[in-house]
Amino acid sequence: MKKNILIIPGDGIGQEVTTWGKEVLNTIAQKYNHEFTFDEAIMGHTAIEATGNPLPDETLEKAKASDAILFGAIGHAKYDNDPSAKVRPEQGLLKIRKELGLYANLRPILLFDELLDASSLKPEVLKGTDILFFRELTGDVYFGEKNRNEDNTFASDLMNYHRYEVERIARKAFEAARTRSKKLCSVDKANVLETSRLWREVVQELAKEYSDVETEHMFIDNAAMQLVKNPKKFDVVLTANLFGDILTDEASQIAGSMGMLASASVGDGTGFFEPIHGSAHDIAGQNKANPLASILSAALMLDIAFGLQEEAKEVTNAVAATLKAGWRTGDIANAETAADKILGTKEMGAKVLE
Amino acid sequence: MKKNILIIPGDGIGQEVTTWGKEVLNTIAQKYNHEFTFDEAIMGHTAIEATGNPLPDETLEKAKASDAILFGAIGHAKYDNDPSAKVRPEQGLLKIRKELGLYANLRPILLFDELLDASSLKPEVLKGTDILFFRELTGDVYFGEKNRNEDNTFASDLMNYHRYEVERIARKAFEAARTRSKKLCSVDKANVLETSRLWREVVQELAKEYSDVETEHMFIDNAAMQLVKNPKKFDVVLTANLFGDILTDEASQIAGSMGMLASASVGDGTGFFEPIHGSAHDIAGQNKANPLASILSAALMLDIAFGLQEEAKEVTNAVAATLKAGWRTGDIANAETAADKILGTKEMGAKVLE
Ligand SMILES: CC(C)[C@H](C(=O)O)[C@@H](O)C(=O)O
Ligand SMILES: CC(C)[C@H](C(=O)O)[C@@H](O)C(=O)O
Repeated sequence: MKKNILIIPGDGIGQEVTTWGKEVLNTIAQKYNHEFTFDEAIMGHTAIEATGNPLPDETLEKAKASDAILFGAIGHAKYDNDPSAKVRPEQGLLKIRKELGLYANLRPILLFDELLDASSLKPEVLKGTDILFFRELTGDVYFGEKNRNEDNTFASDLMNYHRYEVERIARKAFEAARTRSKKLCSVDKANVLETSRLWREVVQELAKEYSDVETEHMFIDNAAMQLVKNPKKFDVVLTANLFGDILTDEASQIAGSMGMLASASVGDGTGFFEPIHGSAHDIAGQNKANPLASILSAALMLDIAFGLQEEAKEVTNAVAATLKAGWRTGDIANAETAADKILGTKEMGAKVLE
Repeated sequence: MKKNILIIPGDGIGQEVTTWGKEVLNTIAQKYNHEFTFDEAIMGHTAIEATGNPLPDETLEKAKASDAILFGAIGHAKYDNDPSAKVRPEQGLLKIRKELGLYANLRPILLFDELLDASSLKPEVLKGTDILFFRELTGDVYFGEKNRNEDNTFASDLMNYHRYEVERIARKAFEAARTRSKKLCSVDKANVLETSRLWREVVQELAKEYSDVETEHMFIDNAAMQLVKNPKKFDVVLTANLFGDILTDEASQIAGSMGMLASASVGDGTGFFEPIHGSAHDIAGQNKANPLASILSAALMLDIAFGLQEEAKEVTNAVAATLKAGWRTGDIANAETAADKILGTKEMGAKVLE
């Protein structure tokens, strides 16, 4: 198989972690006789520094022309502390999602048994948890009109959904539910928001069509609570952009660490694969970041973008074997982990390659 | 002290639980020689059934004329499953919050040592947690303009804040931080939302004035994650209406159960005291609901509305003593709780009164 893969390291630890996602793709290509060619492009703070633009045209063109994209992370504290900045790293990520039509963000909560103890949740609460989030990614209050009045006394963002936007992501979630345990939970705030009431109506309509899937509706506040109380009760979770952002970060604690979770954004064209973690500038360049989320993002690429299930499985198994052998990065180590089992980014990446 | 207290039981388990909040207030009045007089009014589904209006004028008038309000719960599954219903129970609650100017919702996460084991979080993660949430309650996407187009293909809600709305709640949170460990965490999504950027600017400005308070800003996705990972790191948490709704429900798992958490809504006039749990129609009328959140809401009323700290403390101590003696309602029992220690609503209420 011949594929062009674009690597966008982005900001902070993005550089370090994508290195290992790429290495893993290379190794798989050799072993299975695929021809993966790689190109690189800039985005986010890195791109603002170089060009003034968080998503340079060149990056967007390369992205559109590639078969899949492996992305690192975005963001910089400089902008977080300066709410009045007009140009911001995150605009790059939001724009590429919109331009590539990446309306469906899949976030599997993959729980490695070896990491049961790394979580703040009790092992008996966690054991057996297997959730697949479908987060809508190109609508909601993220992309609605923003306003600030002249004397800075008022600000607004329009939360909004079109019926077709809800329908296309819901359809993907229902299809996935069919291949899993046929349970779908749609999360909204229909007791308060008009947007959520439209959302719920559309999901209810589709539920009739997918009558083999058991569909449940839950309010976001309740879902945020249930996810901690009893994560096992969830299987496929479908939700809007903002609620999905919040719930999936929360759910990362089920997997022990944000450093473990990969995501796939798909839609109209080229797929986009990235860890759910941020740029973590505080540890960037220190060989401390966990490369597993990037490596697992590469696995999702093999699986979802290229249909290479066997190759994807091999990567996930390599990660599991490395964890089984006791190797940990700092974020997933616990008090009982022996110091000589705690690895840096490079060493962990190399272990998985072995 | 002479006070007029309005009881609004609301829907579902609201009736059962407010009975015990009221009993506790009565007992305190006798013991400390206060004169508490009680009136009752309807709201929510109950009020729709009786009058067609989720907040009848009579209820609003009584509310305005009272010195404090003890509220139960709101909501009904009938409306949850019918997103197109125009009249909804929750409108009653939202309207009374707005009409009484209850812009600050205080939600203390009170962790009784006896319930450390009732949580899905590890006891060592929980121990020592003490959080006070300040949730803004009369602004945000809850009250912004709602739209639905004619052919039902589009819906929107305007998320918005005025500077003065952010300032008045932030000030309350900073004042509270001064009386606690002088740490404040403000939660927003300033990397995406204009509303959040205004929010952050205002909090940054006030932080200069309250320079003795250590102020931190956190994104909502990160906060939802950190709350599970390491709840102890939070003290006073300040946030907007929607984010506060989500975070406080999530945080209820720290206290073991939603059935344990009380809240106080204050602002321009009469204070409003209510459990954070919902109407739980599935267990309503079955003597299964946990009355402790309503009893603790009564304690908050004594403390915040009437300035009766000693009386409030006595109520909290009575709850602690009851838990210490091993008594539990179903929601806070665990696998090791002996069956004869599990009480119904009435029996638990009576135990606390003793
Ligand atoms: C960086 C930020 C804009 C982004 C989001 O909110 O979508 C991130 O939190 C994510 O979840 O991918
Ligand atoms: C019932 C609902 C409107 C309400 C809210 O979202 O504010 C509830 O969840 C709460 O937290 O008090």
